[in-house]
Amino acid sequence: MAMETGLIFHPYMRPGRTARQTFEWGVQNSIACDKAGFTTMMISEHASQIWENIPNPELIMAAAAMQTSQIRFAPMAHILPHQHPTKLAVMVGWLSQILEGRYFLGIGAGAYPQASYMHGIKDAEPQMLNEMVRESLTIMEKIWKREPFFYEGKFWDAGFPEEAPALTKEDEQHLLADFSPWNGAFPEIAVTGFSKNSPSMKLAGERNFKPVSIFSGLDALKRHWEIYSEANIKAGYTPDRQRHAVSQTVFCADTDAEAKREVMEGPIGYCFNHYLIPIWKRFGMMDGFAKDAGIDPADADLEFLVDNVFVVGSPDTVVEKLNVLFEATGGWGTLQVESHDYFDDPSPWYYSLELIAKEVAPRVKLPEARPAVAETSAA
Amino acid sequence: MAMETGLIFHPYMRPGRTARQTFEWGVQNSIACDKAGFTTMMISEHASQIWENIPNPELIMAAAAMQTSQIRFAPMAHILPHQHPTKLAVMVGWLSQILEGRYFLGIGAGAYPQASYMHGIKDAEPQMLNEMVRESLTIMEKIWKREPFFYEGKFWDAGFPEEAPALTKEDEQHLLADFSPWNGAFPEIAVTGFSKNSPSMKLAGERNFKPVSIFSGLDALKRHWEIYSEANIKAGYTPDRQRHAVSQTVFCADTDAEAKREVMEGPIGYCFNHYLIPIWKRFGMMDGFAKDAGIDPADADLEFLVDNVFVVGSPDTVVEKLNVLFEATGGWGTLQVESHDYFDDPSPWYYSLELIAKEVAPRVKLPEARPAVAETSAA
Repeated sequence: MAMETGLIFHPYMRPGRTARQTFEWGVQNSIACDKAGFTTMMISEHASQIWENIPNPELIMAAAAMQTSQIRFAPMAHILPHQHPTKLAVMVGWLSQILEGRYFLGIGAGAYPQASYMHGIKDAEPQMLNEMVRESLTIMEKIWKREPFFYEGKFWDAGFPEEAPALTKEDEQHLLADFSPWNGAFPEIAVTGFSKNSPSMKLAGERNFKPVSIFSGLDALKRHWEIYSEANIKAGYTPDRQRHAVSQTVFCADTDAEAKREVMEGPIGYCFNHYLIPIWKRFGMMDGFAKDAGIDPADADLEFLVDNVFVVGSPDTVVEKLNVLFEATGGWGTLQVESHDYFDDPSPWYYSLELIAKEVAPRVKLPEARPAVAETSAA
Repeated sequence: MAMETGLIFHPYMRPGRTARQTFEWGVQNSIACDKAGFTTMMISEHASQIWENIPNPELIMAAAAMQTSQIRFAPMAHILPHQHPTKLAVMVGWLSQILEGRYFLGIGAGAYPQASYMHGIKDAEPQMLNEMVRESLTIMEKIWKREPFFYEGKFWDAGFPEEAPALTKEDEQHLLADFSPWNGAFPEIAVTGFSKNSPSMKLAGERNFKPVSIFSGLDALKRHWEIYSEANIKAGYTPDRQRHAVSQTVFCADTDAEAKREVMEGPIGYCFNHYLIPIWKRFGMMDGFAKDAGIDPADADLEFLVDNVFVVGSPDTVVEKLNVLFEATGGWGTLQVESHDYFDDPSPWYYSLELIAKEVAPRVKLPEARPAVAETSAA
């Protein structure tokens, strides 16, 4: 099976963009990706960051629901400590019904202390946040089951009422509405990992969640799969690389030179120079990339990233770079392309999405699925 | 100023409708109403009722945002005890920005004990629910103000972080995103009242919220305005009837006979016969109407409602009936038409909406704004 393509929409909109522009850009991207053959669109949830300015990914999904037909949506991720689990479980169920199953559920504990603080969590200790995630999940699953319970938790209370069976047609008019997810099943749950020894990957393996890696270097990516598959096997499951999604900065144009120039001078370069490179350096997030290339993280600049870390070039070059990454790491099922702010002139962006989905992805395959003579050499 | 027309979308979808159908019907109604000249669309929030099956009105508003241009949206109402106030305040702010101000905020305490139970409120005492509403509102206003605070409440904790001013261009990249409502102002807040001595109307007056009456008979409606305006004046405001919205079952066709037949035999009659009449009788909600007509509430049936309570007929008849109601009660600013399930064949419904907005509303005026010879006689 060939690699699938997805989008991950943080959305990295430059400061000054209005909410309306961000929202429109999200809906437009979902339509463009759906047409191009992308299989998934993940949308972030952040209450605090000016560059990551979507607090409610479900609003974009709702606006895209009737304008798309194939693509599956996922919040990546709903921050469970910030909301009442019943309220979220009902919304997730209803939205997955509206999308007729084109939905899965990313969950997270929240990475930004300012956002935790806004939601009443003053000293956001990872252990407490993880406890909140577990309790929220327990409650959400009970709500989706629609069996009577009342749960007095450490963080939330919740319940589901006892309901007498409908004996008459009149009884049927007063039943509880069914907001369990599409087909009455639990939605697939996904978690993201970034750091090398990501505890999320262990959780994903144990609970058989979908693992999503934010690419942070070869070592971390290999380690993510090891941690995930070890925990997954131990829990009695069979790890499936096809379920593994990896986010990356990817840009495709007709020629390598054009692609590089567009990334260096366009919105992607602007975002990295102004926002991501400074924070990656401040929080040690450049270390993995620097190690892969054998340089000092302090020396990493945009051009270093474009040449050594991002996947940028003509379709042939991008195929080759991805197959090299696949050889080095074992590969993954879905390439989750990082979205950027091409709101003012979307055409190079949409063209890149088309090339990635149509010219690149079909030629990238998991090493285990490839013939003995790797296609890389033919690219 | 002539009466304005709005829609109130509960949505009274018959059991068996899918979530997708309900959602589509909501979006389609918003577009039809926007085109016809309706000024507002209110959408309910219920986690429990099969006939009132929208748990997240914001999803319909988001889907309608880019497909409408004039109509203003309001949840009617967000149930404050069911959700974290910060999460809700941020969503409200973001959505009101997306809608570029075409938004106001209905709030409520939750009328259905089963929905309260689901959200962890086992014995939903009105007093506790109202305390929760007040605390939630206090927190939401602090979040919208964007000034540093940390609040340890009885029901929720919440805060807003201290933020150093941005001195450099780099600082600007790391500011908090601004999810305060459109123009940085608080949104207009609205509450609904039903019972004769509605405490919501008092609250609305005191806080200068927009009063919305669910029509339940002449006495109650007159009393709503008295309670509201007395409290409003006492709090130092000037009551404005133009802000008062009243929901009613209204249907218009070319002739009286056609309109009556459509209501008796169509989706409106179906909903009343199967759902609303039984619960209205069970909870005494028929009493006001029966009193107005001098009959026993037990004898009230669909035809009684169509002839005596609903506003049904040709445009001339509907104008006349509304002007009689306006004379008897003092009138109101916006007629909030109760929406019904015309999903299978929307044309009679859309035609009725057009007639109400274009043929009826311009001929209905507040008594105080009319010339000495009432227009009723010319209708």
